[in-house]
Amino acid sequence: MVNGLVAPKRKDPLADAGTPLSRRAREAGGQPIGELMHRALARPELISLAAGFVDQASLPVEATRVALEQVLAEATAGKAALQYGTTLGFPRLRELLLARMRAADPGLSAASLERVIVTAGSNQLLHLLADTLLDPGDIVLVAAPTYFVFLGALASVGARSLGVAADAQGLVPESLDERFAALARSSELSRVKAIYATSYFDNPSGASIERQRRPRIVDLVQRWSQQAKRTIYLIEDTAYRELRYEGQDLPSLRSLDATGEHVILTGSFSKSFSPGIRVGWGLLPPELVQPVCDQKQNIDFGSPNFNQHLMAAVLESGLFDPHVAELRGRYRQKLKAMLDAAERHLGKVPGASWQRPQGGLYVWLTLPPHVDAGLHGRLFQLALDAGVLYVPGEYCYPAEGPKAAKNTVRLSFGVQDEAGIARGMKALGEALAEVC
Amino acid sequence: MVNGLVAPKRKDPLADAGTPLSRRAREAGGQPIGELMHRALARPELISLAAGFVDQASLPVEATRVALEQVLAEATAGKAALQYGTTLGFPRLRELLLARMRAADPGLSAASLERVIVTAGSNQLLHLLADTLLDPGDIVLVAAPTYFVFLGALASVGARSLGVAADAQGLVPESLDERFAALARSSELSRVKAIYATSYFDNPSGASIERQRRPRIVDLVQRWSQQAKRTIYLIEDTAYRELRYEGQDLPSLRSLDATGEHVILTGSFSKSFSPGIRVGWGLLPPELVQPVCDQKQNIDFGSPNFNQHLMAAVLESGLFDPHVAELRGRYRQKLKAMLDAAERHLGKVPGASWQRPQGGLYVWLTLPPHVDAGLHGRLFQLALDAGVLYVPGEYCYPAEGPKAAKNTVRLSFGVQDEAGIARGMKALGEALAEVC
Repeated sequence: MVNGLVAPKRKDPLADAGTPLSRRAREAGGQPIGELMHRALARPELISLAAGFVDQASLPVEATRVALEQVLAEATAGKAALQYGTTLGFPRLRELLLARMRAADPGLSAASLERVIVTAGSNQLLHLLADTLLDPGDIVLVAAPTYFVFLGALASVGARSLGVAADAQGLVPESLDERFAALARSSELSRVKAIYATSYFDNPSGASIERQRRPRIVDLVQRWSQQAKRTIYLIEDTAYRELRYEGQDLPSLRSLDATGEHVILTGSFSKSFSPGIRVGWGLLPPELVQPVCDQKQNIDFGSPNFNQHLMAAVLESGLFDPHVAELRGRYRQKLKAMLDAAERHLGKVPGASWQRPQGGLYVWLTLPPHVDAGLHGRLFQLALDAGVLYVPGEYCYPAEGPKAAKNTVRLSFGVQDEAGIARGMKALGEALAEVC
Repeated sequence: MVNGLVAPKRKDPLADAGTPLSRRAREAGGQPIGELMHRALARPELISLAAGFVDQASLPVEATRVALEQVLAEATAGKAALQYGTTLGFPRLRELLLARMRAADPGLSAASLERVIVTAGSNQLLHLLADTLLDPGDIVLVAAPTYFVFLGALASVGARSLGVAADAQGLVPESLDERFAALARSSELSRVKAIYATSYFDNPSGASIERQRRPRIVDLVQRWSQQAKRTIYLIEDTAYRELRYEGQDLPSLRSLDATGEHVILTGSFSKSFSPGIRVGWGLLPPELVQPVCDQKQNIDFGSPNFNQHLMAAVLESGLFDPHVAELRGRYRQKLKAMLDAAERHLGKVPGASWQRPQGGLYVWLTLPPHVDAGLHGRLFQLALDAGVLYVPGEYCYPAEGPKAAKNTVRLSFGVQDEAGIARGMKALGEALAEVC
C-alpha cells in the first residue's frame, strides 16, 4: 500500500444505471496508481522508495510498553482509557499537546485548551476541515506540488485545488498574492476558503517555508480575508516538524497569527512516534471548534480513547523526546545515504537535480525535461524491472495552476535501510541512464 | 456526551454569505439535543439513563494488559503493530473474525477472508457504506424506530430514510413488502439502495428479529432486488449480538443469504469488549470489497493497526469469551434492576408499557399517548429537575414513514449500577406521575 496514494479523479465516471454504487464510489474506482501499486507490491522483492511509511526498525516498542504499563497499572485509570471519550479528545492529552505547542513556539498566542482537538491522525483532521469548510466549487490554494492525499480529500468534497508556485524555500508569497489578485479580478475570491501549506519538510518536495516568508504568508492571508470580507483560513500541516536533521527550528505560521483566527495548525504523532497508534491533533480558530466537533461527532464520537491515553502517558513519562532524538539520528543517516547515492548514480545525468531537505522523509527529484516519470512512461517501467518503486511527481500537482511536471519524482527514505536506499538509487540511476 | 446523538437536521440552514463554513457544517450546527445534553451533562450529579456507554466497572483492564504484553513481547511483532497496516485490516485479526463468524453461524456460506474488513468501530463501516452506496435522494429502509446515529449518517449524504413498521419481534416482513410495493408503484424502487436492520437487541427498541421472520426478510430483499434489476443490500448490524442475557442465539440474516451477495454484516467489539479500543468489522458482498476499500483508503489508509493487533491477541489468547461471559452476568443483573424498577415505579401508570429485551443495553418505554417525552415537553424537564436524563424516543424515527411517537423513551442500563438504575427509574416515575 502506498500510503493513500490517490490518483486524480476521472472526470467521467461510469454511467451505469444498474450499479448499486454511489457516484462517489464510481469515481473512486479504478484509480490507476492504486491498481499499479497493488500489482507492483505483489512483488515483495521490490525496493520501495515510494511508500511514506516510517522506519520499521525505529518503532518504539519499549516506550509503548512502558507507557501502557502506566495506563493499565491502576484499575480506575485503565477503565477510563477503555471507555468512550469525548469528541474533542482526552483532556490530559490536550493539555500536554498545548504545553508542547507553547514550548515549540514561545511566541504562540491565543492558544487555549478549548481550541485543541485530538483526531485519528492529522489526516482525519484534514478531512474534517474539508467537510467543515468546503462546498463543491470552493477553492483551496496549495503549493504545487503538494501532499496528494489532501488533493484527494479536496476532490472528494468537490472542491477545486489551485496551485501556487513553490520552490526550495517553500510557498512563494508573491505567487500567492498574484493568485489572490487574479481570483479577485475574476470575481472568484468569494470561493477561496483556505490555503493549505506543509510548513516543515513538505511532502513531496522536502522544502520548509523559509523564515522571512512566513510572516508574509500569514499577512497575505489576513489581508485577503479583509478583502474577501470573510475569514480565509491557512491550514498549516506540521506533521514533519519534529523530524529535523539539521538547521534551526522555525516559528510556526500559527505563532505568527496573533489572534489565532486565521491559521489552523495540524500535527501528528504518526511520523514522530507511531502510525499504528494514529493520534493527531489540531489547534483551531475559536469559531471552528464547534463546527469541526459537529462533523467529528457525526463520524466517530471521538477518536479511540485508549490511544489518546497511551500517547498522554508517553508524553507525561518523558518517553517521547528521547525517541524523537533517536529517530532524528537514524533518519539523518538515511537522508545522507539517499543524497550520497543520488550524487553517485544520478549526478552525471545532465539536467537531473534534487533538493537537499533538512528534515522529513522525502527527496524531490527533477529529471531532464524530456523524461516522463509517470506510470505509463518508460522510466517507471524500467525502474520496476530493475526492482525499484517511486511515486511519480505529477500526481502531487493540483488540478489547476502550474502544470504538473511529468519529469519529477518523489523519493522516500522512510522505509528502506541504508543498503536498500543505495540499491534502490542505483537501480533508479540505471533505469534513468537507459531512458536518457 | 450522548454517544453521537444527532438531532434531525434543520431543513433551512442559515444562509449567510459571510460564513466561511460549508453548507454541511451550517446544517450540522445548533443541534437542539446536542446543546441540551451538553447543558444537562454539566450537572455531574445527574443519573444518565441516556448514554449508550458500556458498564464502566466491567471494562477489561486485565485482559487488555495481558494481550498487550503479548503484542509487545517480541520486537518484530511489536514493531509490526506500531507501523501502518493495510486498508482492509490486519490479516490475522480478519482470520480470527472469520472463524468466530463461522462458529456463531454454522450455516454461514460464501464467507471468505478477502470479504472481511476491519474498521474503526462498526460505526465507521456504516459511514463507509453510506458513502459507497448512496447518492442524494437515494432511499434506505429502516425500522421505525432505529439507531439514530445511522439516521445522521444517511442525512449527511443526503439520502432519504424511510421507516418500516417494527414491533417486539423486530422488523415486520409484511410492512417491508408493502413498503417495497408502494415504492415500486411510485416508480421509486430504483432509488432504494439498502435496508438497515439491527438484528439482535436493537438500539433503541431492544427487539431482536424473530426467528421465522429472518428468512422472510432476506427473501424479500432478494426478490425485490430482482424486481429492481439491481442489488438492494441488507445491512445487518450485529453490534449487540454477544450481549444476550436469556434465550437462544439466532442465526444471523447473513447466514440465511447463501451467496452472501445481499447481506452486509457489521460487527463491533465496542460493546462486547471496549469502546476505547474501537475495533469493528464487516463481512462484505464480493462486489463491495473494492469500493468500500477505495472509500476507506481515501479517509484513513486503514484503521489504527495497533488496536487491531491488540484485539487479535485478545481473541487468540482466549481472553474474549470469558470477558463476555462476565459481561453477560453483569448486564443481566442491571437489566433485571431496570425492569423491576419499571414495574415498581411505572407499573401503575395507565397506558405506560415497556418491552422486555433478552439482551443489549436498552429498554424501550411507551407512555400514555398524551405524554410528550420530547426535549421541550414537561416530562423531560421534570425528569431533569428530578435528576435523571433519558433519550426522547422521537429522535429515533426516520424522516418518512410511521410517525415519530412522541410518547416514547429510550432507557439505557449500560452506565449506571443497580442502585443508580433504581434511583433514576424512581425519579422518572415521579416525573411521569406529575405529568399524568
